[in-house]
Amino acid sequence: MTAALLTDHYELTMVQAAMDAGTANRRSLFDLFTRRLPEGRRYGVVAGLGRALEAIDNFRFGEEELCFLLERGVIRENLAAWLADYRFNGDIWGYAEGEIYFPGSPVLSVEGTFAEACILETVLLSIYNHDSAIAAAGSRMTAMAGERRCAEMGSRRTSEWAAVAAARAAYIAGFASTSNLEAGRTYSIPTIGTAAHSFTLLHDTEEDAFKAQLAALGEDTTLLVDTYDVEAAIRKGVELTEGRLGSIRLDSGDLAIMARQARDLLDDLGATDTKIMVTSDLDEWQIALLQGAPVDGYGVGTSLVTGSGHPTCGFVYKLVARAASDEPDAEWISVGKKSKGKNTLGGRKFAMRRLGEDGRAESEVIGLGAAPVNDGNDRDLLVPIITDGRRVYEASLEDARTRHADSLAELPLSARRISKGDPALETIILDEGGDVTTNPYQAAPVVTNI
Amino acid sequence: MTAALLTDHYELTMVQAAMDAGTANRRSLFDLFTRRLPEGRRYGVVAGLGRALEAIDNFRFGEEELCFLLERGVIRENLAAWLADYRFNGDIWGYAEGEIYFPGSPVLSVEGTFAEACILETVLLSIYNHDSAIAAAGSRMTAMAGERRCAEMGSRRTSEWAAVAAARAAYIAGFASTSNLEAGRTYSIPTIGTAAHSFTLLHDTEEDAFKAQLAALGEDTTLLVDTYDVEAAIRKGVELTEGRLGSIRLDSGDLAIMARQARDLLDDLGATDTKIMVTSDLDEWQIALLQGAPVDGYGVGTSLVTGSGHPTCGFVYKLVARAASDEPDAEWISVGKKSKGKNTLGGRKFAMRRLGEDGRAESEVIGLGAAPVNDGNDRDLLVPIITDGRRVYEASLEDARTRHADSLAELPLSARRISKGDPALETIILDEGGDVTTNPYQAAPVVTNI
Repeated sequence: MTAALLTDHYELTMVQAAMDAGTANRRSLFDLFTRRLPEGRRYGVVAGLGRALEAIDNFRFGEEELCFLLERGVIRENLAAWLADYRFNGDIWGYAEGEIYFPGSPVLSVEGTFAEACILETVLLSIYNHDSAIAAAGSRMTAMAGERRCAEMGSRRTSEWAAVAAARAAYIAGFASTSNLEAGRTYSIPTIGTAAHSFTLLHDTEEDAFKAQLAALGEDTTLLVDTYDVEAAIRKGVELTEGRLGSIRLDSGDLAIMARQARDLLDDLGATDTKIMVTSDLDEWQIALLQGAPVDGYGVGTSLVTGSGHPTCGFVYKLVARAASDEPDAEWISVGKKSKGKNTLGGRKFAMRRLGEDGRAESEVIGLGAAPVNDGNDRDLLVPIITDGRRVYEASLEDARTRHADSLAELPLSARRISKGDPALETIILDEGGDVTTNPYQAAPVVTNI
Repeated sequence: MTAALLTDHYELTMVQAAMDAGTANRRSLFDLFTRRLPEGRRYGVVAGLGRALEAIDNFRFGEEELCFLLERGVIRENLAAWLADYRFNGDIWGYAEGEIYFPGSPVLSVEGTFAEACILETVLLSIYNHDSAIAAAGSRMTAMAGERRCAEMGSRRTSEWAAVAAARAAYIAGFASTSNLEAGRTYSIPTIGTAAHSFTLLHDTEEDAFKAQLAALGEDTTLLVDTYDVEAAIRKGVELTEGRLGSIRLDSGDLAIMARQARDLLDDLGATDTKIMVTSDLDEWQIALLQGAPVDGYGVGTSLVTGSGHPTCGFVYKLVARAASDEPDAEWISVGKKSKGKNTLGGRKFAMRRLGEDGRAESEVIGLGAAPVNDGNDRDLLVPIITDGRRVYEASLEDARTRHADSLAELPLSARRISKGDPALETIILDEGGDVTTNPYQAAPVVTNI
């Protein structure tokens, strides 16, 4: 399926009008960024870049798409002819996937003709707003889980293809595995799963169900023990495996108390190596509260795939600079909307994470029109992604996962506090001369329309 | 792309274990339902059935899928052989798309062998949980908008394919149009859109931008007037069209005040037919607050596609009955998990909306094992969807939209109150003899694990 129609109608009417007016080929620079983090969040996590590159590659208008657009009157023949040959031939750079970002961080910059850059807006925003929301929630969960493993199990609570993307974003954020088989196939993420309550209920007794599962999946499997009576189920599971049962799963009730009771019982029965996995409406706060409980792994569903209260990121895609005229050597001018609460910082941006001598991040520095001076410890944040239409970004999903872990480790410890607070780093905007200038985002008031 | 891997790993390990144990062919009945509505919501809206039917039709395991599953050790050869021929050959019935539902409503029932019904769990839940969440939010918005038109514009705030499904769900809930072109193509939903701020900023002056847009899209277009100065933009738009401008769009600031000022100015300038459309973080409360403002249409994005605070529905898919043995003529027995806060009402269910003589809905009646007696005014809610593997449900998207409007009109007026409250109808559970029995869902306490 082409990605070309995963696009708002107005992208094409704009290009149609610009083409007719002779302005469609003006060199343009769009920034993808957010004006603020979700309330109380201390950092954001870039996720979606790998998928965005696939979407750009797959952004092709075939005969069927063009017929639809022409019949509906969205475009006319001159635009149809241009779309038929559409390939993005400009430049894209931005933050590596897995990187941490803050309000105003120029997460992705797209430079090309107005037409070729404009029509990517919707699909880029869809991917970044979704994937980064999941990664940000997931990052808080893995931070709370510490050394314990987290498994993504939310496919059933989000739409079917979003589920695949969510599994990928969660993996970037440090989740160890997913329940989603398509994510396993497409992205080589480890998949896990054993049985649901229906499997126990299918059989005449719980013992029959456990025997069937152990026969098929081996003693190292995870038995779900809360269909009837947890204690009886644990005793049966240990008995059937002579103490070699891999794991049990608790999916209801007071998990802290139940985990404690289960651990004591397992230990009493000699099953000291049997692990305890918990599921059931977990989020980062529940995971934090279970830090003291004898839990070995967390299965997280709803809260993860819905961004734990923040299912979208607030990324926007704004024209920040353009050629002053249609001449090939025209100068660039900065542009930006000036609306109350929705103003945009115009101009070409550079980005650097300022690090102290101890390697700890101190601030996010955005240079307008010129790169901030790197004092030696600092880390440049912008990497080339597409150059002259050719993909140059080759980082893998594993690279993104590593990038995320490293960038998070670099932040002050306060970044990992679960309570609501300000962004972990201040974003400092420098003008072309290197002087600090006003940051319109960091302290931007929440827009209230009424 | 096949839908077969949009599935949790454990669905297949369960089927593998049941196949090895000889229980995979036991006749089984699964219900898709929710134990409770999102907090404060007064009704739910069924959406996703049409998409679920496509997914079932497309639930095929090809060579590539089977190789992946075998290599990963998810399945073995005996299950691979069965999956290669997989077609759902059972029966499905449930609520029509667009119908209203309440806690415990048997929204979808799937009967077949354990294996064939079990493996549809994840994809059915993904579709229903997402689409119904969007429809429920959308229904509250169109209810608040009354006769004014709502346009779905949230593609950029949800993942790219979820956006297409969201546009479809919003249409069921009464939205007039979408910005999403793929939804226009796939589901024939009207699409709309004109221009963003970037289009104005691309041009040397706002006048140049407006002229370009009017030339390409005609005087009936919608001009976005808040890039620089709203009053100047409105004057210019009216001047360029000699008062025949179709519409203006306001996308920032205090929309109630701005709409009033814009209306007065348009009227003063003689543009009395020019409409006012508002966008910018609208939700059902903002729409309600704008009821007194001179607004002609609402464009809704983020809040709609994220379910206005409830991005997923809490639908579960539970085994509620199965054959007592593997014999072909075995009796059915009701089954259900008994966990605290997660118990399930076992058994085969019938559903009816009890209507008064005035046609007003009075209660949701669920019969266990026997259909509730229809007193003549009542409306049976279950419709056949798939019979012996053959699709018999043929309602269109327009039918779903009509069904939703009719079902909502039938509810007590309190259903449309925007404030938080109890479900608009009580769900009454009748046992096989027609006597009222305990409803485990309606008053179920919220599960608190810690």
